[in-house]
Amino acid sequence: MNDQTPQKDALIVFTPSGKRGRFPVGTPVLQAARALGVDIDSVCGGRAICGRCQVTPSFGEFAKHGIASEAAHLNERTGVEDRCDTKRGLAADRRLSCQTQILGDLVIDVPAESQVHKQVVRKRADTRDIELNPITKLYYIEVDEPDMHHPSSDLERVYKALEDQWEVTGVTCDLAIMVELQHILRQGDWKITVAIHSRLASGAKRITAMWPGFHDQAFGLAIDVGSTTIAAHLCNLSTGAVAASAGLMNPQIRFGEDLMSRVSYVMMNPGGDKEMTEAVRGAINTLAGQVAAEARIDISHILEVVLVGNPVMHHLLLGIDPTELGGAPFALATGLPVTRPAREFELTLNNGAYVYVLPCIAGHVGADCAAVVLSESPHLSDDIMLVVDVGTNAEIVLGSKDRLLACSSPTGPAFEGAQISCGQRAAPGAIERVRIDPETLEPRYKVIGSDLWSDDPQFEDAVAQTGVTGICGSGIIEVIAEMYLAGIINQDGQVDGALSARNPRIRAAGRTFEYLIRDGEPLISITQNDVRAIQLAKAALYAGVRLLMDHLQIDKVDTIRLAGAFGSHIDVKYAMILGLIPDCDLARVQSAGNAAGTGARIALLNGKGREEIEDVVRKIEKIETAVEEKFQQHFVEAMAIPHKTAAFPELEKEVVLPPVKVVEAAEGEGGERRKRRRKA
Amino acid sequence: MNDQTPQKDALIVFTPSGKRGRFPVGTPVLQAARALGVDIDSVCGGRAICGRCQVTPSFGEFAKHGIASEAAHLNERTGVEDRCDTKRGLAADRRLSCQTQILGDLVIDVPAESQVHKQVVRKRADTRDIELNPITKLYYIEVDEPDMHHPSSDLERVYKALEDQWEVTGVTCDLAIMVELQHILRQGDWKITVAIHSRLASGAKRITAMWPGFHDQAFGLAIDVGSTTIAAHLCNLSTGAVAASAGLMNPQIRFGEDLMSRVSYVMMNPGGDKEMTEAVRGAINTLAGQVAAEARIDISHILEVVLVGNPVMHHLLLGIDPTELGGAPFALATGLPVTRPAREFELTLNNGAYVYVLPCIAGHVGADCAAVVLSESPHLSDDIMLVVDVGTNAEIVLGSKDRLLACSSPTGPAFEGAQISCGQRAAPGAIERVRIDPETLEPRYKVIGSDLWSDDPQFEDAVAQTGVTGICGSGIIEVIAEMYLAGIINQDGQVDGALSARNPRIRAAGRTFEYLIRDGEPLISITQNDVRAIQLAKAALYAGVRLLMDHLQIDKVDTIRLAGAFGSHIDVKYAMILGLIPDCDLARVQSAGNAAGTGARIALLNGKGREEIEDVVRKIEKIETAVEEKFQQHFVEAMAIPHKTAAFPELEKEVVLPPVKVVEAAEGEGGERRKRRRKA
Repeated sequence: MNDQTPQKDALIVFTPSGKRGRFPVGTPVLQAARALGVDIDSVCGGRAICGRCQVTPSFGEFAKHGIASEAAHLNERTGVEDRCDTKRGLAADRRLSCQTQILGDLVIDVPAESQVHKQVVRKRADTRDIELNPITKLYYIEVDEPDMHHPSSDLERVYKALEDQWEVTGVTCDLAIMVELQHILRQGDWKITVAIHSRLASGAKRITAMWPGFHDQAFGLAIDVGSTTIAAHLCNLSTGAVAASAGLMNPQIRFGEDLMSRVSYVMMNPGGDKEMTEAVRGAINTLAGQVAAEARIDISHILEVVLVGNPVMHHLLLGIDPTELGGAPFALATGLPVTRPAREFELTLNNGAYVYVLPCIAGHVGADCAAVVLSESPHLSDDIMLVVDVGTNAEIVLGSKDRLLACSSPTGPAFEGAQISCGQRAAPGAIERVRIDPETLEPRYKVIGSDLWSDDPQFEDAVAQTGVTGICGSGIIEVIAEMYLAGIINQDGQVDGALSARNPRIRAAGRTFEYLIRDGEPLISITQNDVRAIQLAKAALYAGVRLLMDHLQIDKVDTIRLAGAFGSHIDVKYAMILGLIPDCDLARVQSAGNAAGTGARIALLNGKGREEIEDVVRKIEKIETAVEEKFQQHFVEAMAIPHKTAAFPELEKEVVLPPVKVVEAAEGEGGERRKRRRKA
Repeated sequence: MNDQTPQKDALIVFTPSGKRGRFPVGTPVLQAARALGVDIDSVCGGRAICGRCQVTPSFGEFAKHGIASEAAHLNERTGVEDRCDTKRGLAADRRLSCQTQILGDLVIDVPAESQVHKQVVRKRADTRDIELNPITKLYYIEVDEPDMHHPSSDLERVYKALEDQWEVTGVTCDLAIMVELQHILRQGDWKITVAIHSRLASGAKRITAMWPGFHDQAFGLAIDVGSTTIAAHLCNLSTGAVAASAGLMNPQIRFGEDLMSRVSYVMMNPGGDKEMTEAVRGAINTLAGQVAAEARIDISHILEVVLVGNPVMHHLLLGIDPTELGGAPFALATGLPVTRPAREFELTLNNGAYVYVLPCIAGHVGADCAAVVLSESPHLSDDIMLVVDVGTNAEIVLGSKDRLLACSSPTGPAFEGAQISCGQRAAPGAIERVRIDPETLEPRYKVIGSDLWSDDPQFEDAVAQTGVTGICGSGIIEVIAEMYLAGIINQDGQVDGALSARNPRIRAAGRTFEYLIRDGEPLISITQNDVRAIQLAKAALYAGVRLLMDHLQIDKVDTIRLAGAFGSHIDVKYAMILGLIPDCDLARVQSAGNAAGTGARIALLNGKGREEIEDVVRKIEKIETAVEEKFQQHFVEAMAIPHKTAAFPELEKEVVLPPVKVVEAAEGEGGERRKRRRKA
C-alpha cells in the first residue's frame, strides 16, 4: 500500500527543546529526535530493552491502546512496549520513542528523566544544578558472529557494532577487558553491553567494562579524602542520584593526627609514605564495599571514581612521597589532573574502572579546594566571591569571573579544637554554642547531641550519657566572641582579671586569667593561651584573605562561602565579630556545606565539569603567602578583636595595637608563636 | 666588537643531504642544521654532554686546535670538546656541532652515526636496511627549580623544560614514573634525562622513564615467541645494534608439545591458560635478564619490548584464553596491534617500559607472520612474492605491492619431524642431509654437529658422542625426494617393494615396505606412513599456495621466501622436487632466515615500521582455507610427487592420480588422514 501512495511528511515538535522538523510518515520518533539533535537517552539503541527513551505525546490524535485508527498521528502501543511496561514500567501516557512511529503531526514531550543531559537538582538554592553528562556511558550492541568467509577478530566486530549501531568510533579496549571479551560475547549470545570512557588525557575512547546481554547499571564514587575523615558518595551515573553515602576515619591518623605530623612520619620512617598510601587506599576499598552493600549493587558496577583531597592526601593517594610539601618551597610533584585505571590505585572495583583526581591549585591549595571551586563557581560570579575552606590550613579563593586568586594560610588546627586547652573534635558531648550574659557574665551552652541549653532544667539529664567533654571549633569561636562582647576580653584579647570580683568564673591561672565555662569533670575553661591561639589562627586566615584583596585591589567582598565542616557549623555572625572574615553583608555569607564532596560529585557526573575546573585551575593566580611581605603585616594587624566590622557598626572602635614582633609566626608551631608573642 | 660591525652571513652546506642555507656568523652548526631540517642526533640538547652531534667539517679554512685564526671559517676546537674527547672520544677531524660556530662558508659532513635516522644494515643483500626511527627517545633537560613567587609543580616544570629546550609538547607522564619524579629531580640537581614514548594508540607522548643527570642508555627487546623456542634480541635504540641475543625453550612445552595440544590443555584444565601465560611471561623475564647480563646493562635500561608470535602464543602473551582458536570459526579475540605498559604483562624491566605486540593477520596467521611480512616486504614488491613460514601450520602470504593475500594451511607437524617414525627435532645427532645412489640405492647422510658424510671413514668417530638419533625436517624432505629420484617411491609415494631384490634396505614392514637408512641403535628407516605424512603436509602447503594463486589469478610466482627454522635448513631444490612450493626460478627461492625476529627488530627500531605493518595487515586479504572448496581439490591433486616442476623439466611427467577421497583430511589428525586415504 505504502509503495503506491506518494510518501507523506508529518511535522513533529519536541518539547521542552522546541526543536521541530518534518519526517516521512513511519519514521520512529527516536530517529527523528536524533536527526534534530533532541537529547533522548538510550542504552539499548532503539531495541525497546532499556526503557530509557520514554516520551509523552502531548498533542495529536493518538491511537488508543489496542484500537488501530486511520486518523491516528502515532502508531498504537506495541506488544514490545507492553513487555517493557511489565519489566520496567511504562505509564499509560508514555511511549518508547524507539517504538513509536510518526503517522501525523505531533508534539512530543521529552520528560527530564529521559534526557541524557538532565539536571541533578542541588539542595542549596544559591548554587547551580549539576548537569548530567557522564564520561562513562553504556552501549548495548549486537555483534556479528565470526564468519570464516570474512575473517576478523571478535574485538574488531565489537568496534564495528559500536560504529554501525551507535556511530561511536576511535575506540580502544583495556587489556584487562580484552581478556574477558570472548567469554562475554559467547555468554551473551553476541549481545553485550559495553561501558565506554570517553575522556582520557589523550581524548581516546576506551572500553572499560563489558557485560553479557543488556546491562543497565553504571555507578561512580565521589570521594573526599580529608585528613580526618574520608567521605564517599555512590552515584548512579544514569540518573545522577546519590545511591548511598558513607564515611570513615582516615586510617592514616595512626601515623599522625594532622598533616604535618604525617609528613614528619615519612621523614622519620623511610617507606612511611607507602604505609600511608596503602592505608588510605584500603579505606577507600572498605568504603566502596560499604556503599555498594547499602545500595545493593555489585561492586563491579562501579566504573568511575573521583578523588579530591588536600595536597598531602593527593600525593599519598597517588603513591607520591609528600615530604616536599613539608617545607619551603612546598613543591608539588604534580598538581595536574590524573585519569588512570583504578587498579593502579589498588582499588578493587570493576576491573576496568577509572580514577579521576582533580587538579591541585598550589602547594597548599589542593584538589579539595579545586572541588570547592567547582561547586561554588566563583569563576562564574559577577560579584567578588570569597571562598574559604578551613582545615589545618585555610584554603582561600577570591575573585570573580574576571580574575581569580588563591592562597593558603597557616591557621594551624585551632579552629578544629586542637591546641585549645579544652578543645576537641566536633563529636557528641562537645560544646558547640555559647552565650554569655553581659551583666552577670554567666554562660549558657549547648552540646552536640542535645537541643537543650545548659540553663534548661532537663539539660543534665539530656547530656548524662555523653557528658560534656570539651569544646569544639564552632564553640570556641562563639565563646571567644561572646567573651569579647561581654567585656571579659579586650580588643587585644587579654582576659580582664579585674572581673573576677564580679564573677569568680574569671579566675587566675598561673600568671594570666581564665574563664570557667563548666566546673565539673572535666572542667571546661577558656585560658589566655586559648584566646591567643584563636587570635593567631583568625589573624592568619584574615591576613590571607586580605593579601588576595590587595592583589585584586579591592577592600570589600560581595559574597562569602565557608566550606567544610567548620564552615557548616560556625555561626557566621561570630566569625565576623572575631574578624575571621572581612566585612560583608551578613545575608551573603553562607556555609557551602560539604562543597569539596559536591565538587567531586560534579566532576563524577559531568565531563564538562572536569574540563571546567581544569581550565579554571590553570587560570587561577597562585599566591604563596610565605614570600609575601604584606602577609606578615596583615597578620600582625589582624590579631586584634574585632577588626573594623562594617556588619556590626556598634562594635567598631579604633584599635591601637601594641608593637608586636611575630617572626615567621605564620610558619612556626603554635606554641612557638605564642612564646614569641608573649616575649614581644 | 660584533655589535659594531655589520652582521655577516655565511653559507653552510650539509652533506650527504645537500641541504644548504645562509646563517649569521656565530651561529652554532647544530642550530643551523636544525633550521635546515638536517638530521643530527642529540640527547643533551646542545650542551656538549652526549657527544652524539659529531660532524666532520670537509671544506673551508679551519682553525687549528689551539691557534685562533682570523681567516678561520669555524671557531677553534673548544675546551668543552676536549673534555668530550676524553670522556667519549672525538676524533681530530670531528667537531661537536653544538659547540662549533659558523664563521665563514662551510661544508659540513654529517657522518651516519650522528644521524637519528641512520640505516641499520641487514646482512642479506636482497632485503631493505632498517631505518632507525625509535619510538622511545631520550631527552636531557635542565628543569627550573621551584619558585615560591611563581608556584608550579615539579612535573609542570619538567613539561616546560621539554617544550623550551626540545620543542616537545603534549607530553603526559606515567603514574609509576611520577612517583619517582621529585627524588630524581633533586638527586640530579634539577638536571635529568627523560625517555619519551611517542606512539601510543592515542598519539600521545608519554614520559616512560627518568634518570638523574645525563643518561645515554636506551635499549629494547625484540622477541619472537615460538611454540618451541623463544628468541630475544637486545637492541640499542640509539644505534640499532644488537647488543645481545639469547634463546630459551618455551616452558609451555610441559603443557603440550604443539599448539593444539596446548589449546586442548586449556579446554581440559580450567585456568590452564593462566598457567601458560605465567610460564611464557616468566621465560621472557628470564631471557631479558640473560641478554642484559650479556650486554652488561642494567635491566632498567630496557624501555621497549616488541613481541611477535603465532595466534595462540599471541593470545597467551596477552593473557587471553586461546580456546576459540582451537576450532572453527577460529575467531581471534583481537588481532589488533597492542601498545601497553610492560608491567601489564608482568615484565620486570624499566618500570615504565612499554610492550608493542604486532597485529595478527588472521585466526591462524599470527603476529609472527606479520613480522615476516615486515621483514620481507612483499607489499613493496613489484613482482609476485610468495612468503611461507612453516611451523605446525604453514602461514602463507602471496602477492605484490598491488594486492596481498594470506592464509594458513594445516600442514601438521611432519615438517618438524613430528609424526614421522624416526623423526626428531633439529638437534645434534639428527640426520639433516641424505643422498641415495640411484644405481646401488645405498644412502649417504650427514648429521647435525658433524661436517662429514656417513661414507667418510672418520664418520662413526665424529658422531660417537651424539650418536645418530633420528631424522629432522630437512632430512626428511631430502630423503623422500632422493627416494623418489632413485625410484624407491613412485609419483604416488608408494614404496616399490620389488626393489628389495636389488637392495635389502627396501624391506617389508607389515603390509607395506620401508627404506632402511641406518641399521643400528636406533634403527632409522623411512616407512610408507612417513612418506604419506610428508605427502599430506606438502600437499596442504602447496594447496594453500595454489589457493592464493587462484585468488590472484596467477599460475607462477616470481620470488619465494622461506622463513623460519625449517626454511633456513631445507635445500630448496628438494622442496621443489617434492612440490612443497610452486614453480619458480630456483635462484629466486631464498631462505628468509629468522624473518619473524627481524620483523620484530624492525618494529622495535622504527616507529614507521609499526605504522607500515599495521597498514599492510589491514589491507591483506584473509583467506580461510577451511571454507574454500578449491582447497580440498588442490590438496588432493598435490599429493603426487612431483607436481609439474618447471624448475626440473627432466622430472616432468604426466601424473595420473588414482581417485582419492580425503574427507576433511586437512583438519583431521595425521593418523586419521592416513587411515582414510588407505581405505579409499
